[in-house]
Amino acid sequence: MTEVLIIGGAGMIGRKLADRLAADGTVGGKKIDRLVLQDIVEPAAPAGAKFETRAIAGDFSKPGLSDELVASKPDVIFHLAAIVSGEAEADFDKGYRINLDGTRLLLEAIRQVGGGYKPRLVFTSSIAVFGAPFPDAIGDEFHSTPLTSYGTQKAICELLLADYSRRGFVDGIGIRLPTICVRPGKPNKAASGFFSGIIREPLNGMEAILPVPRSVRHTHASPRAAMGFLLHAAGLDSSTLGARRNLTMPGVSVTVAEQIEALRKVAGDAAVALIREEPDQTIRTIVDGWSRNFDPQRSLALGFRPDASFEEIIRIYQQDELGK
Amino acid sequence: MTEVLIIGGAGMIGRKLADRLAADGTVGGKKIDRLVLQDIVEPAAPAGAKFETRAIAGDFSKPGLSDELVASKPDVIFHLAAIVSGEAEADFDKGYRINLDGTRLLLEAIRQVGGGYKPRLVFTSSIAVFGAPFPDAIGDEFHSTPLTSYGTQKAICELLLADYSRRGFVDGIGIRLPTICVRPGKPNKAASGFFSGIIREPLNGMEAILPVPRSVRHTHASPRAAMGFLLHAAGLDSSTLGARRNLTMPGVSVTVAEQIEALRKVAGDAAVALIREEPDQTIRTIVDGWSRNFDPQRSLALGFRPDASFEEIIRIYQQDELGK
Repeated sequence: MTEVLIIGGAGMIGRKLADRLAADGTVGGKKIDRLVLQDIVEPAAPAGAKFETRAIAGDFSKPGLSDELVASKPDVIFHLAAIVSGEAEADFDKGYRINLDGTRLLLEAIRQVGGGYKPRLVFTSSIAVFGAPFPDAIGDEFHSTPLTSYGTQKAICELLLADYSRRGFVDGIGIRLPTICVRPGKPNKAASGFFSGIIREPLNGMEAILPVPRSVRHTHASPRAAMGFLLHAAGLDSSTLGARRNLTMPGVSVTVAEQIEALRKVAGDAAVALIREEPDQTIRTIVDGWSRNFDPQRSLALGFRPDASFEEIIRIYQQDELGK
Repeated sequence: MTEVLIIGGAGMIGRKLADRLAADGTVGGKKIDRLVLQDIVEPAAPAGAKFETRAIAGDFSKPGLSDELVASKPDVIFHLAAIVSGEAEADFDKGYRINLDGTRLLLEAIRQVGGGYKPRLVFTSSIAVFGAPFPDAIGDEFHSTPLTSYGTQKAICELLLADYSRRGFVDGIGIRLPTICVRPGKPNKAASGFFSGIIREPLNGMEAILPVPRSVRHTHASPRAAMGFLLHAAGLDSSTLGARRNLTMPGVSVTVAEQIEALRKVAGDAAVALIREEPDQTIRTIVDGWSRNFDPQRSLALGFRPDASFEEIIRIYQQDELGK
């Protein structure tokens, strides 16, 4: 009997993960018998699943909810729930309540089950744990000095995950996701939105705005690569990790100019012509504080696989979202 | 009107700090009008203080206590309160309650005062935020991967201190203290106890046990140097710190063999003859997980001053504790 729990199952990553588990029918080589999906709104069950599914709506930070979620002793828990960066900065209390207190309640709920219960917990952290100034490529031993409350909350949860794992209460792995690109859906107002927008909008025949210079460098992973990270983390032999349970995932580091040239290769000059440069100093200042490149030797050695190129990232969007 | 608050005022560092403030009469160049001392047991007021003193006994992790402590808006807060490493490892809940929840309650209490209140908060962190494997000397950008719950709690508080400072709720500085040597008082059972014991016991005509090889390297600071760090942090212009609010303090890195040769210089062969080697594999394993040396360029550039040598560390013990 293998049960999987996805906390934050209604988000973009959560829905794609549920779909993938339904398609695979297995996780870490084990046949899935039951999938439980939690989110603040009731998550949709994946289509075509050959296992039992259950959806739970509830506030992750409410005392008692995590106890309910782990009472059935799920074998693998994907913890994706989070207040995003902008909201955690705008609402200090809410960010700490969901991103920190919620995670701590989950860890405590797991610990309190007892009787040798020690699930694999895959926690999605973020490259926001790093804060400028940076080296050219951030290595595996670079310190966490976040410049947002969101990054602070993720960095704290990484420390808790490692300590609870070291003490034998949980078998945790934290994965720091790069920026997900190409994000499906509508344009949004996130400062990072343009990284996806300058690809997604032209591929859909719409104009896109580029608010930063083409020299800006950033690291990306496709949603498909992110699924690969999550599933690989779920099945990884954690004895190879030692006490350092948090890993920077490998991505594709490119400049905006290189993104645009990849778009030209895939969709031609007409698509590129839909990108309009409209410099925005506010966005530029935010983006200048972000990391540009990584040297994630550990995760590569542990078998985590990045997209092959930014061109592949674009083709994955076409295949998975546009059905091409 | 300048008020100073010492949280953890009954401990070794807290008592020495109160005495020093009483002797100086000032902190960060400002005349002290009132000193408030808090601890779980009522701290003794320093002798000869020319300012008002007040002692408060109470559990630092009890909701409401920190609100009471900051209601009078102390200008400088020294937060020294902690469950020590061994106890935080033995009692998981107590460690998190005091070392993490207590600190968070303090930060929240400060934030809730409002009206522009933004005290200088000097937080004593620890080199326990670092976990093996280490480089030969730990630089200012090395990551925090603690191997104890105590180190985890200190690393989390560092992150909170930085975020609350970045948001403008407090003006925090975290100082990572090296091992304090020579600790006054009786031998204790801490794994690190022998670093002080092999100096203190011979200087008091008693036998000392050395449980590790003489090749073991470690970093030390005298209690007097630690006072210097605390007072310098209290008066530092924090605008020079940027967002990175936590600093590794400079110490004296020596092998046990070098400690012993320094003892020989100060107190002769007869003192050294009182050291008995009695290898203890348990202690050796613990000590092998500890950092050996640091390269704390930031704190040195900011004017924090280490002891000149291990010989000076011994002479400080003689002067301050033995009245020589």
